[in-house]
Amino acid sequence: MTTTENTTWRSAEVSTLDDDTLAQVHGWWRAANYLSVGQIYLLDNPLLRTPLSRDDVKPRLLGHWGTTPGLNFLYAHLNRAIRQREQSTLYVTGPGHGGPGLVANAYLDGTYSEVYSDITPDAEGMRRLFKQFSFPGGIPSHVAPETPGSIHEGGELGYALSHAYGAAFDNPDLLVAAVVGDGEAETGPLATSWHSNKFTNRANDGVVLPILHLNGYKIANPTVLARIPQDELRSLMIGYGHDPYFFEATEETDLATAHREFAELLDTVLNVIAEIKARPDDDETPTRWPMIVFRTPKGWTGPATIDGKKSTGSWRAHQVPLASARDTPEHLRVLADWLGSYRADELFDDEGRLDPFIAELAPPGSLRMSATPHANGGLLLKDLRMPSFRDFAVDVPAPGATIAESTKVLGTWLTEIVRQNPDNFRIFGPDETASNRLQAVYDATDKQWNAEFVGPEVDEHLARAGRVMEMLSEHQCQGWLEGYLLTGRHGLFNCYEAFIHIVDSMMNQHAKWLKVTNDISWRRPIASLNYLLSSHVWRQDHNGFSHQDPGFIDHVINKKAEVVRVYLPPDANTLLSTYDHCLRSRQYVNVVVAGKQPSPNFLTMDEAVAHCTRGLGIWEWAGTEQVGENPDVVVATAGDVPTLEGLAAVDILRRNLPELRIRFVNVVDLMRLQDEKEHPHGLNNHQFDMIFTRDKPVIFAYHGYPWLIHRLTYRRANNENIHVRGYKEEGTTTTPFDMVMLNDLDRYHLVMDVIDRVPSLGSRYATLRQRMVDKRITARQYTREHGDDIPEVRDWAWPSEYAQTFASDVSSTGGDND
Amino acid sequence: MTTTENTTWRSAEVSTLDDDTLAQVHGWWRAANYLSVGQIYLLDNPLLRTPLSRDDVKPRLLGHWGTTPGLNFLYAHLNRAIRQREQSTLYVTGPGHGGPGLVANAYLDGTYSEVYSDITPDAEGMRRLFKQFSFPGGIPSHVAPETPGSIHEGGELGYALSHAYGAAFDNPDLLVAAVVGDGEAETGPLATSWHSNKFTNRANDGVVLPILHLNGYKIANPTVLARIPQDELRSLMIGYGHDPYFFEATEETDLATAHREFAELLDTVLNVIAEIKARPDDDETPTRWPMIVFRTPKGWTGPATIDGKKSTGSWRAHQVPLASARDTPEHLRVLADWLGSYRADELFDDEGRLDPFIAELAPPGSLRMSATPHANGGLLLKDLRMPSFRDFAVDVPAPGATIAESTKVLGTWLTEIVRQNPDNFRIFGPDETASNRLQAVYDATDKQWNAEFVGPEVDEHLARAGRVMEMLSEHQCQGWLEGYLLTGRHGLFNCYEAFIHIVDSMMNQHAKWLKVTNDISWRRPIASLNYLLSSHVWRQDHNGFSHQDPGFIDHVINKKAEVVRVYLPPDANTLLSTYDHCLRSRQYVNVVVAGKQPSPNFLTMDEAVAHCTRGLGIWEWAGTEQVGENPDVVVATAGDVPTLEGLAAVDILRRNLPELRIRFVNVVDLMRLQDEKEHPHGLNNHQFDMIFTRDKPVIFAYHGYPWLIHRLTYRRANNENIHVRGYKEEGTTTTPFDMVMLNDLDRYHLVMDVIDRVPSLGSRYATLRQRMVDKRITARQYTREHGDDIPEVRDWAWPSEYAQTFASDVSSTGGDND
Repeated sequence: MTTTENTTWRSAEVSTLDDDTLAQVHGWWRAANYLSVGQIYLLDNPLLRTPLSRDDVKPRLLGHWGTTPGLNFLYAHLNRAIRQREQSTLYVTGPGHGGPGLVANAYLDGTYSEVYSDITPDAEGMRRLFKQFSFPGGIPSHVAPETPGSIHEGGELGYALSHAYGAAFDNPDLLVAAVVGDGEAETGPLATSWHSNKFTNRANDGVVLPILHLNGYKIANPTVLARIPQDELRSLMIGYGHDPYFFEATEETDLATAHREFAELLDTVLNVIAEIKARPDDDETPTRWPMIVFRTPKGWTGPATIDGKKSTGSWRAHQVPLASARDTPEHLRVLADWLGSYRADELFDDEGRLDPFIAELAPPGSLRMSATPHANGGLLLKDLRMPSFRDFAVDVPAPGATIAESTKVLGTWLTEIVRQNPDNFRIFGPDETASNRLQAVYDATDKQWNAEFVGPEVDEHLARAGRVMEMLSEHQCQGWLEGYLLTGRHGLFNCYEAFIHIVDSMMNQHAKWLKVTNDISWRRPIASLNYLLSSHVWRQDHNGFSHQDPGFIDHVINKKAEVVRVYLPPDANTLLSTYDHCLRSRQYVNVVVAGKQPSPNFLTMDEAVAHCTRGLGIWEWAGTEQVGENPDVVVATAGDVPTLEGLAAVDILRRNLPELRIRFVNVVDLMRLQDEKEHPHGLNNHQFDMIFTRDKPVIFAYHGYPWLIHRLTYRRANNENIHVRGYKEEGTTTTPFDMVMLNDLDRYHLVMDVIDRVPSLGSRYATLRQRMVDKRITARQYTREHGDDIPEVRDWAWPSEYAQTFASDVSSTGGDND
Repeated sequence: MTTTENTTWRSAEVSTLDDDTLAQVHGWWRAANYLSVGQIYLLDNPLLRTPLSRDDVKPRLLGHWGTTPGLNFLYAHLNRAIRQREQSTLYVTGPGHGGPGLVANAYLDGTYSEVYSDITPDAEGMRRLFKQFSFPGGIPSHVAPETPGSIHEGGELGYALSHAYGAAFDNPDLLVAAVVGDGEAETGPLATSWHSNKFTNRANDGVVLPILHLNGYKIANPTVLARIPQDELRSLMIGYGHDPYFFEATEETDLATAHREFAELLDTVLNVIAEIKARPDDDETPTRWPMIVFRTPKGWTGPATIDGKKSTGSWRAHQVPLASARDTPEHLRVLADWLGSYRADELFDDEGRLDPFIAELAPPGSLRMSATPHANGGLLLKDLRMPSFRDFAVDVPAPGATIAESTKVLGTWLTEIVRQNPDNFRIFGPDETASNRLQAVYDATDKQWNAEFVGPEVDEHLARAGRVMEMLSEHQCQGWLEGYLLTGRHGLFNCYEAFIHIVDSMMNQHAKWLKVTNDISWRRPIASLNYLLSSHVWRQDHNGFSHQDPGFIDHVINKKAEVVRVYLPPDANTLLSTYDHCLRSRQYVNVVVAGKQPSPNFLTMDEAVAHCTRGLGIWEWAGTEQVGENPDVVVATAGDVPTLEGLAAVDILRRNLPELRIRFVNVVDLMRLQDEKEHPHGLNNHQFDMIFTRDKPVIFAYHGYPWLIHRLTYRRANNENIHVRGYKEEGTTTTPFDMVMLNDLDRYHLVMDVIDRVPSLGSRYATLRQRMVDKRITARQYTREHGDDIPEVRDWAWPSEYAQTFASDVSSTGGDND
């Protein structure tokens, strides 16, 4: 599938480290530990050329030491192995708290000075390196976008393995060394992500080497996995389908012995991986990939005790063990001893340059884990080959004249994208890709599955390799996709609308990552994170109240405007046009909400493209306004079901109030409603006032929680006149129209809203208003009796007679819809 | 600890079922299956007295069959065991799709007719039972609040075990049979919840019996755990610390054999549990509780094939296998055969009454799983014994004159609650209870931990039994607490503010549950779900951008107003008063955000009580308005850091603009800002206008995303003049004042806002304004250089001279603060 890069999977003689290599590895580790401690504590005097004084210590000590030495140890050993095997390797740091360690290693690698030219590989650079850490105007204390070699912040725990597997998909020559903290291992998302091995293809995907870092403690507690019998832990890992290798070092372990034992274990494990990789591609022997249990003391090499209490090897080493080093002479002395224990004078010369012999441990160029292009995915990103979405347009001879399932139509186009992009595009979903009606993609691909098969009568569209990734874990879908995108590929996540809240916090972290990378010059743009939310709030006939929640939109737009976009295409052609835009975009979180049920098509493809490009627009064919006259009322809609109800309301109004001048507005790009100062897509006030008027009533039928529209428009001149109908958490129901009635979003209620709010109508239309109330009562009664919507609603369609006025115009503008 | 209820844990002879009991159990199962299929398909003709016709079938077939027969099988067998052992048992249904099954069993039990008097145990009742299912105006298709015996909707998957363990805590005599679907088992939350056994005390807590229902398929895919070798699954369960027992039935298994084998297995497992429970309380032998792997065909007893494709035993049986039964004669025939296969005429008499012999399988009274009071927790709920929070007040001789860590003060009061309520109050938190400064509670209790211990030098406050539950999984904390509350107890969940988003979707489901139960007359109110969010957005010095997110408030207020409350107490005494209110309340989701850092106290306890009771109020001592005159500007604040900055801004204004009439308003109860029509706590327009004026500028310093304030106030007369400063996703920083400056929420910016917005000031104060700009520049420069906030900000305190004016009034109103 993918071409090989710089290596195949090599075996090597298992090493127990000759004395030189031991000195080199140990030297690297000491250097990395020294630099880590320096970052946490030192404001100045980086090489301790003068005795450590109070003023050398930062006034506010912020950061985390506990996990860092373990991460540094692994980094040093991986360096040795990578250099020997020329193995392209990505290092995923689950314990994001190990920020100083990853920065230290990138500095020792040379990468840090390459991307941050003021952090030079000398004493002054080291001083800057130390000072900037967790310091105002400096860098964050966590592994972060600012850290070269990182795709994973780890600020919020739980996603190390799903990110690692996402990075490995379609990178057959990549090793992903994924360190999982034992705190993180307690989270739900991490606990299920061990099962990712069942979704990984041996031939086409890279290899994830999980390293469970058992340092035993969290902030204030022991960790679960460090406090179960080793046999039980072994069973757990075997039960997850992994082949565990155990390493243990205690505070008493001789460090040379620790290095020799770990080197041997790492070589053994990498050889096992090489053997598995060497099997023929079509060999279907069940694969049990190795993983490493790495049990080391928390805060390894730090002070054994502080103030008479055990520090190293306890939760007390989690953050800053000597928090009052500046103000307590005894702590300052302990800190000086601690720093001294690394014998930095043997590691760095008088200019602060790393001993060349130790520096040689770093692999060359992009084989450095801090410099791998996989951790700066934009470098590897290729544009998708995009078939023209126009070729997949549905025919719309007149507005509402044809019916389609929007997501099903989208699926036909995605099928062609899958065909044309066989190794850098995947579709993720929690068992819902077919339920969300994208099943056409199975004409071109399968669901990737590497657990057991039973037989074709049940295992439809299931294969060892495929572009669709389905596991019933929204966390896994999101985490895999993030890992896939961050390493320079493309994809989308289709999900039931209500349950996308499961990944609210993951979306937060990804959006923050994007926001920060926008300001980091060496980070290249990556493909957007695209959501397709279907099975939405208005059509939960099978499931009811628990499956109704349109609030992900509200959640997303709290993130920085420059990285979030929300689209509500009202029909199939607008969905195609919208998604084409999303898949071409970079550095965004795009949320697209679209129905999967049969519903009318309103716009030809030319109209759809124009409408989506504008983001919102007046549907002239639907309204009754005259050019040159102000409308009496604006009926605005956003979302497919609200658009249908809005049009049905206009139909009633046109029949009963032919003199009423109605403007019909549809909004696809929700961010257009905001002010241009708030969002790059926002309309300026003049444009907004042109469309929504400055003083006419606006009846707005909206897909989600109604107050979002108010939030987006509260500064507009016409704000007071905007009356929004949306979802109100009103409980369960089982027919489509009953659902909209329950939330007062139905056509009859919208008509009542117009009558109530257009001052010129007043009591003259009391009878029509009452008729609407009665219609609702009748419709509900019918539904209660028959279990289905009343036919006049269910079978309603936009009347063809209205369309004729504009049909000639419409057909003259576009010809590629047939 | 807790007194025993109606039983101890009895052993019983292992049964392989005599023929009578077999007939009884099998009869119950057939009846439950018949009633389940009837609910999904039948509109009428419940007993099939006439041949099944098209019109007997519902026009829209909604629901889920696949998991139902397995749930029914388990229910029947548990009935037998419960009756024999008189074992109080709660049945938690992970696969919420099995709604028809749970309803069917509750109907067979008699409970259903007891709580819904129109669903009588006869043919007419059965007709209503069938019709109402997933029908407009009827009941949801999922296990739901409407389902007797349920505490768990299962609409969103992943929480069956955490709910089950939450129910078991402090219910030492309760068996919780928790069915976990194999789809659900793929979710993250479920995957980690197997580890709940390490947090369960053998003596004081009940027993959870997890039953992993391996029916092999999800909507459209096989499940992971059904497609790994049985040895691997065994290892996984052993690795999780459980003792697995395996049961398997295939489509070919003789049903009598299946019953006999399962009865034997269930008796064996219950005897093992009884033996473990019989050990002395102080026996510390490691406990390995049994669990059952229950492998049965999906849609068991349904049509083997439909349209030539395998149905039973495949994902095709997930929802409604014969979806076109009404319109396809062949499907109608298959449905008739299927219904007929249960031989309902042998189970129900001509009046539709259940055969008394079969009915006898149900345990008596509240031993029925559908009637257990544990599933209607309000029945068991006891008020907390509440020590007076006034006794824990901090001394406030004058506003700002003393300093406290609010949550630490709260902790001292919680300690006393823990002491006085040793068996119905627990504190949940993801390794953060001490980090959030509630550590005083460890004077009275410990963290409950039943994994390995190492020694007192590291295992501080860790014990086999304790009131604090800490696992690094927000999902587990939330799920445990929900289970604990739903079964009639009290608790709180303390969490870092940013990461509470991890449980956004769980909060949704719980809020929906509360909303629905408010309308179910037989459901009794339960204690509120109380959040304490600390380590909030403004003080993430150690962690930075990834830990900054105040959006949970935004998320929560999308739920029904009747069930959500949000509080932002500005200091220690207001936090005490607020939390007292929350712990006494029922049926709410209470979100309380409070800082843990040292910060000034503003209100005496009497003032705090009055302020919290009003929900918001004018702080007369802070402002400069005169009674009888309108203020020139309103400075409003909500949240502790914004309140500090707002007061500091007022201090600058008072010194430089002594003639400016400032009103200072603080908001504790955020919902007061809404209109009374939107929220029960909302102020009416008159009250709002009184406080915020109709036309004066309001400078609002708010804890969270600024637009939330606009959303809450967009309909107020003075809306246009409300200018909000809040959190803007501006990225990382590491000192407190730098953080507020980064978001323009700092005192200097607030002063600039006042100058910009009070029309009478105009250019006369251009100098002062420029001085504020310069102050910001200086403050930032200082921070960049020294790594700490500039002393004039860091050491600022509310000037004592302002306080003196009001000190005499204040001290005359209350005397219990010393």
